[in-house]
Amino acid sequence: MSNQIRIGIAGYGNLGRGVEYALEKCGDMALRAIVTRRAPESLTPVTTGVRVVQADQAHTLADDIDVMILCGGSATDLPEQGPAYAKLFNTVDSFDTHAKIPDYFAAMDAAAKAAGHLSLISVGWDPGLFSLNRLYAESVLPEGSDYTFWGRGVSQGHSDAIRRIPGVKNGVQYTVPLEKAMEAVRAGERPALTTAQKHRRECFVAAEENADLALIEKTICEMPNYFSDYETTVHFISEETLRREHNAMPHGGFVIRSGETGNGTKQMIEYGLRLGSNPEFTASVLVCYARALYRMSRDGARGARTVLDVAPALLSPKDGAALRAQLL
Amino acid sequence: MSNQIRIGIAGYGNLGRGVEYALEKCGDMALRAIVTRRAPESLTPVTTGVRVVQADQAHTLADDIDVMILCGGSATDLPEQGPAYAKLFNTVDSFDTHAKIPDYFAAMDAAAKAAGHLSLISVGWDPGLFSLNRLYAESVLPEGSDYTFWGRGVSQGHSDAIRRIPGVKNGVQYTVPLEKAMEAVRAGERPALTTAQKHRRECFVAAEENADLALIEKTICEMPNYFSDYETTVHFISEETLRREHNAMPHGGFVIRSGETGNGTKQMIEYGLRLGSNPEFTASVLVCYARALYRMSRDGARGARTVLDVAPALLSPKDGAALRAQLL
Repeated sequence: MSNQIRIGIAGYGNLGRGVEYALEKCGDMALRAIVTRRAPESLTPVTTGVRVVQADQAHTLADDIDVMILCGGSATDLPEQGPAYAKLFNTVDSFDTHAKIPDYFAAMDAAAKAAGHLSLISVGWDPGLFSLNRLYAESVLPEGSDYTFWGRGVSQGHSDAIRRIPGVKNGVQYTVPLEKAMEAVRAGERPALTTAQKHRRECFVAAEENADLALIEKTICEMPNYFSDYETTVHFISEETLRREHNAMPHGGFVIRSGETGNGTKQMIEYGLRLGSNPEFTASVLVCYARALYRMSRDGARGARTVLDVAPALLSPKDGAALRAQLL
Repeated sequence: MSNQIRIGIAGYGNLGRGVEYALEKCGDMALRAIVTRRAPESLTPVTTGVRVVQADQAHTLADDIDVMILCGGSATDLPEQGPAYAKLFNTVDSFDTHAKIPDYFAAMDAAAKAAGHLSLISVGWDPGLFSLNRLYAESVLPEGSDYTFWGRGVSQGHSDAIRRIPGVKNGVQYTVPLEKAMEAVRAGERPALTTAQKHRRECFVAAEENADLALIEKTICEMPNYFSDYETTVHFISEETLRREHNAMPHGGFVIRSGETGNGTKQMIEYGLRLGSNPEFTASVLVCYARALYRMSRDGARGARTVLDVAPALLSPKDGAALRAQLL
């Protein structure tokens, strides 16, 4: 179809492949190109006819792409790539370093405005859908308390921390919300809770032969910042079991607002996600926001935006009349 | 404060009083007037200095009100009042007859456009926040199934139906989601479920002395449309107990989308409300959308809109930078 939105993917890891899958379910969008820092011939995209372009040749795509979806990481990729791509394309990314969002927004806003482009940053589920729910809930219930629980899901940072311990061959860490804390929040008690009081950490570790398991367990449980404040469990399993049973990337969590209206009437809003694959879900969010971005750009919007600025109807392939008749 | 948004309330029942309460928690808005069909002197608003105006004099408020919040019912009030008020004011209402929304939208759009006003219709939780969640979830997961469960909560229509039965002094009906159905949905089974397969009905009835209780129970359980398709329970209690224990108007429910990404990866999005008071919560939603409406109107928007058209950031008293830093 000639009137499909022309999409590019910059970065072809788990997230980039998730975007490719998600686009297959959207008839109004077409993947046109993948930009990579690897050798283009080493990539095997599933989409037929898609161009694979070396990162330093991305500018050659400027006239062929309506929205470039940036699938790099937040630590080092996006702070550098984001503003560079915003000069060439309308962009959507999943920048998720919460504390650095204001700075990243400013950099993307300046780059996109200077080039006459539109950039949507921090799209995904947290930041993203969770942020939206915090905003809606706080606006409806100005008197109240917010709670975000994460999990059950794999934390890449904590898994990496385990893997760096001597004697560890491989490891996976799950962040798990504490039932007791969730029950207290759901009961409307509005408790004050730290992150450690809301979550426990469960580790699955494949150790090297003859490794000191007790020492590994102690090293994990006493690791500052990562584990020492948390209720932590360590399970030693074989490398094969780890690969077989813990190779998925599930995640999820809950955003709860416990508030009051009138003279102490209790009201509770709860949003929850249970995700079989974190990168595939994040990719699906990126793709529907690419549709919205394209429409906003066509209507003249320039600079940086976040999910908080996007009218929900813009996310759907359906028009206003269909949405009112079917979903309202 | 002279730069507060000036709000009017049209209709001073449970919903109108809820709006008055909700405005007390919003420093950027002020209640200026209440419009009523009753004798103005019979109203006792809690807000000091508010004007109370007879409905046929509403036009005298045209220059003093930024947004009129319409608190009439959907069956007979709003279809007539909505377009009439849209000629005089920017309006927000909670029109909730789902099947008639397209017609009501058209009528409000025409009236508001002709007068240079903006009207936001069908604001509340269903339609409203539930509609938003159906839209977000369907846009993120185009492959999937939607489920809306209502309750546990009082259904006014079903309670009225009970009260019309001979021998019944008073009655309250609760719609209750069926746990078994919710579990099947949450398990990702994507079952096909009718409304009756998702809910049961629980009735509390105060009967007249010497009434035939067995006959009342049979009449309820066999009532077509209202009860006959449902698992229905009837409890007979004293009128005093009914008044004491069932005088609140709790409600709530769940919107669940069970979908798939990639090659059959299961993903689940769930939104839930547990409301101590249905009218107070609906009123709180109306009030934050009045803020958004005012901003959209100031920016030149005219005609009718729904919650699906409103960018989330417009709902909050905080500015974009604060929202990005605190909520994203």
